[in-house]
Parts: sequence; structure tokens; C-alpha cells
Amino acid sequence: MSEPLQQLKGRMAQITRLGQAASLLGWDQQTYMPTGAASARSEQAATLSQLTHEMFVSAEIGDLLGRAEAESRGEDPDGDTVRMLAVLRRDYDRSTKIPADLVAEFARHGALSQEIWIRARAASDFNAFAPALEKMLDLTRRQAEHLGYKDHIYNALLDAYEPGAKHADIAAMFTDMKPHLVALTRQIADHGAPVDDAPVHGEFPIEKQKALTLQVIAALGYDLTRGRQDEATHPFCSNFSRDDVRITTRFNAGFLPQALYASLHETGHALYEQGSPAEFEGTVLAGGTSLGVHESQSRLWENLVGRSRAFSRYLFPKLQETFPGAFS
Amino acid sequence: MSEPLQQLKGRMAQITRLGQAASLLGWDQQTYMPTGAASARSEQAATLSQLTHEMFVSAEIGDLLGRAEAESRGEDPDGDTVRMLAVLRRDYDRSTKIPADLVAEFARHGALSQEIWIRARAASDFNAFAPALEKMLDLTRRQAEHLGYKDHIYNALLDAYEPGAKHADIAAMFTDMKPHLVALTRQIADHGAPVDDAPVHGEFPIEKQKALTLQVIAALGYDLTRGRQDEATHPFCSNFSRDDVRITTRFNAGFLPQALYASLHETGHALYEQGSPAEFEGTVLAGGTSLGVHESQSRLWENLVGRSRAFSRYLFPKLQETFPGAFS
Repeated sequence: MSEPLQQLKGRMAQITRLGQAASLLGWDQQTYMPTGAASARSEQAATLSQLTHEMFVSAEIGDLLGRAEAESRGEDPDGDTVRMLAVLRRDYDRSTKIPADLVAEFARHGALSQEIWIRARAASDFNAFAPALEKMLDLTRRQAEHLGYKDHIYNALLDAYEPGAKHADIAAMFTDMKPHLVALTRQIADHGAPVDDAPVHGEFPIEKQKALTLQVIAALGYDLTRGRQDEATHPFCSNFSRDDVRITTRFNAGFLPQALYASLHETGHALYEQGSPAEFEGTVLAGGTSLGVHESQSRLWENLVGRSRAFSRYLFPKLQETFPGAFS
Repeated sequence: MSEPLQQLKGRMAQITRLGQAASLLGWDQQTYMPTGAASARSEQAATLSQLTHEMFVSAEIGDLLGRAEAESRGEDPDGDTVRMLAVLRRDYDRSTKIPADLVAEFARHGALSQEIWIRARAASDFNAFAPALEKMLDLTRRQAEHLGYKDHIYNALLDAYEPGAKHADIAAMFTDMKPHLVALTRQIADHGAPVDDAPVHGEFPIEKQKALTLQVIAALGYDLTRGRQDEATHPFCSNFSRDDVRITTRFNAGFLPQALYASLHETGHALYEQGSPAEFEGTVLAGGTSLGVHESQSRLWENLVGRSRAFSRYLFPKLQETFPGAFS
């Protein structure tokens, strides 16, 4: 390995780990953090985001990246090193456009908004959350202006989730899909008597749901020695390495599918992250390639597998065993 | 506020928050982290410790500190600013003697040792832990050599916990105490029939112990909106600001005092940290002044309060209510 490449990888591994610590701040806030800690947490999130950003956009990284690129010229364009440098170049050029204080403000406001949202949601009070959301949109627009864009402001933002995708492509895709989806929905509605979902409403003690969902997600291949499931107001998957990929779910004691399908969905994300190659750890190649691919994995397990007849045949005896009253 | 002082405080607040994130990595490892994540966590701990150290021992901090000290000359020597600068000077002069790679190795080895210790403890297998402990002692000795010392190597290490205390003072204190303690222990042993502790051995379901300990520590003034209690192999108190002070305890379903007195002890630490003045946040004045003072607080609540007759009168009806069989 060339010297600039080696130095670059070492520095990027540090930056990655700092980012992982920032992710843990976020996971903790949504799972176990006491509510009174929100203000301090927002400052911690701001500091770590700012430091991670400053380390990444430094002249040192720019210099090492340029030298590593020069030395890799002529190498296999599909090799891991060349692809890693390409992703790094894309991220570097993107990040250097955004001022560090905006990065910090984003993280600070995100952490503060989380607590406001949770309180507003519990009270079904959108007005309590609206100002925080408005500010988040404002910060997001400022970010897009720094990044620059053609045709549509959303192109600047979409690029972070689906590299190269354009607002016009996505709009065309939804326009194409809409008539088919509307027709399908109408067909289902016109079909007559809806499916009777009474059995999944009732009393499903949360401790039993926890045990059931853990059993099912482990059976799907989710390695719980390198992951765990907790409760959160909104289900999510977060990871701090391929060996620490955690999901959350939301339990509703009166409606079984809530936690069950949230767990299946997040397990899809988790399986993807746990399967990321060990040799990519600490580099920009680790983890998912894009939000679209990530969501394809979560929905594969939630819907194509989870809602299939074959999976239901597997699940049903477990439901009967766990909740004998409801499924006898 | 002078400009150097203001800049120094801003930079120290960043460093403090980075250190708080490092502390969260440690708390998480001891409470919820999946075991498979130990290796990745050790690298995260190493990175954050190294970055925190590098930021702190930087020429920038040294320069700002020197200028702030110069500008504060003549101010009230017991004022918060002068005292803050004095503590910072002591910490700075100490930290600059220790190389960053040793700081990183300490954190890395500490995180890895934690997992080795937990497995060895579960198997009552000291030999499995001995090499990790040996390496920790070696790293500690190297740290002491970098710090430098007179008379005894432990003086270099003791200074971090009890600023200014000397090995000879501590040794003299224990030598003075020993005959009295031995005599007292002998007196108790010779007193005849030991106290019957049968009622605290038995069956104490852990969920009930959790509820009881939470009720008791809240009654002592532990603000659970700015703290929480979890389980860990070894009870500890950790904080990530004065508004996020967490304790852990260890439950033994067959022996009630284990969790109860561990909770009281850690609550003593937590009350001290939660009571740290808000205006000290993000500075070296936040939190406890020394390990000795900290331990005085934990033992005050565990022993002077917790084992008093007055407290037992308060506790007994709660024990009867929670475990009617054992305390009827």
C-alpha cells in the first residue's frame, strides 16, 4: 500500500470512529437518555459533528486524497481501492462546501428537535413541533444552497442519499407508478368485504412481544451477539461498526403487527449492515451504498418475506404458542 | 471576560464534550453493548481518548492558558476563574507529559480488558484475566514514568485522584488506622452470636428489587429526569453532564443487600455530580474535586445514612410491602 493511501486510511479510520461515537450519542438519546439531558446532548452532538467535519475537510485529507488518487491511476477501476477513493472524493468535495458551524447547528438542532417531537407526538400537538420543523427545513435549505444544484434544490439533497439521482427522475418514477397504484388500491377497496384483522387486535403483553420478535429476527439471521433490539418512539437501525448493529421497535400492547413488522423492517437494515465486509471497516465503503438499496433490504424482509404465505406458515405456530388465546 | 479566557473556555467546552462522548462509550459497553462489539469499541475508545488528549495538550491550549493566566493576575485567588485556571494548569502540565499513543493504548486496552474480565469473572477464572491485568499494570507504570515522581512511583498516579497527596501520607494513615480496625473487628467477632441476617437471604425477584431501589434512590433526592439506573457487572456512576448522571447496580435474586446498598452507594456519587453548579459545565471545575471527596459522598449515603437506624425505620415498611413473605 502506498504511503499516502496508508496515511489516508489511518486518518479516515479515526474520523469514522469519531462518527460512530456521534451515532452512539443519537442511539442513546432515542433509547435510554434521561429527558433532562437533551440540552447537554445537543451540545455533545454539535461538538462531535463539527470535529468530525473539520477533520474530514482538512487540507491534510485533501492532500492525502489527491496523492492517493494520483498513485492509483491505472489500477483496476472496479478494485476496492479505486472505488474507495472515488466515494471519498465525492464525499470530500461535498463536505468541503458546507461550513463547520452549519454542520454543528444541524446536529444541535436535530438533537433538540428530537425531544420536542417526542413531547409533541405524545400530546398529538403538531403546533408544538412546527417551529422546530420549520427551523430544520431552513437549515436544510441553507445546506442545499452551500452544496449548489441545477434545476431543483432537492437535487443537492437527494445526491447524499442516492448518488447521481435527480429530482426529475424520481418525479417521473412516481408519476409513472401513481395510476397503477391508484387502480390497484381501488380494486382492493372494491373487492368487497375487507380481510378480518380482528385476531391481531387484542391484548398482547409487551414482554411476550419482546421475546417473540427477538426469536423471529434471530431466525432471520440477525446476529444478536453483534446487535440488539430496544424500544424507541420511532423504530430505527443504527450501527457503530459491522459488529454493533442495533435496531429499535415500538410496541403496542393492543395491536400485534406494530412491533412485529417494525422489527422485520429494521432487521432488513441490520442484516445488510452486519453483512458489510470486515475489510471495509473504517472506510467509506463500509455499510450500505445508498438509502434506496438500504430500504430495498428492509422492505424485502418486512414485505416480500414477512407478509408472504410461507413466512406466515412459519410464524403462525409461534403466535399460537405465545398468544394462545388470540390465535387458537 | 478577556478574549484568551473566552477562547480557552470555548475550546475546553469542546474538549469536555468529546470526553463526555468517550464516557458514553464506556457506559454503553458496561450496560447494553453486544459482546461482539468489544473490538470495535476498543478502537472507538482509543480514537476518542487520543483526540481528546491531542486537542487538550495542543500548543493552542497552552498559549491561551498562558495568556489567560497573565490576564487574571491580581484577581481574587479564590474566584472561580483563577481556580479554574489553576486546575487547568495542573491538568495541562500533567497531560502534556503523556504521549498520545500511550493514552490511546490505555483506552483500547481498558475496553478490551473489560470484556475479558467479565468472561473471566463469570467463570471464576483469574488466570484468564491475569495477562490483561498485567498489561494494564505495565501501561500504568509507563504512564507514571512519563509523569515523573519523587520517593515512590505511586505518587505520580495518586496525584490524579487526590491532587497533592503522597504515598507516604496514605501509608501513614492506614498504619495509624490498622490497630484500631483490627481491635474493633476482634471485638465484634468476640461479641458472641452474630446478627441473624436470614431475612435478607431468600427470594427477591429482580423486577421488584428494581422498583424498590428506584423508589429509595429517588427519595434520597436523585433526580431521575437527569439520571437513570441500569444493571452492570460492577456497579458504577458515570456522567455526561450534570444533567445526565447515571448509576448502575448489580442484582442478586437471593440476597437483597447487594443491589440495595450498591444503589445507595452509587446514588451518593450521583447526588454529588447532579449538584455540581450549572455554571461550571464544560469546564474543569464541573463534577467532583477528588476521588476521596467523591467516595466520602457515596459512603455517606451508603453507610452513615443507609445503615442507620433512622433510615432502616424508613425502609422497613417498604421492604414489608415489596417482599411481604420475607419481612412479615
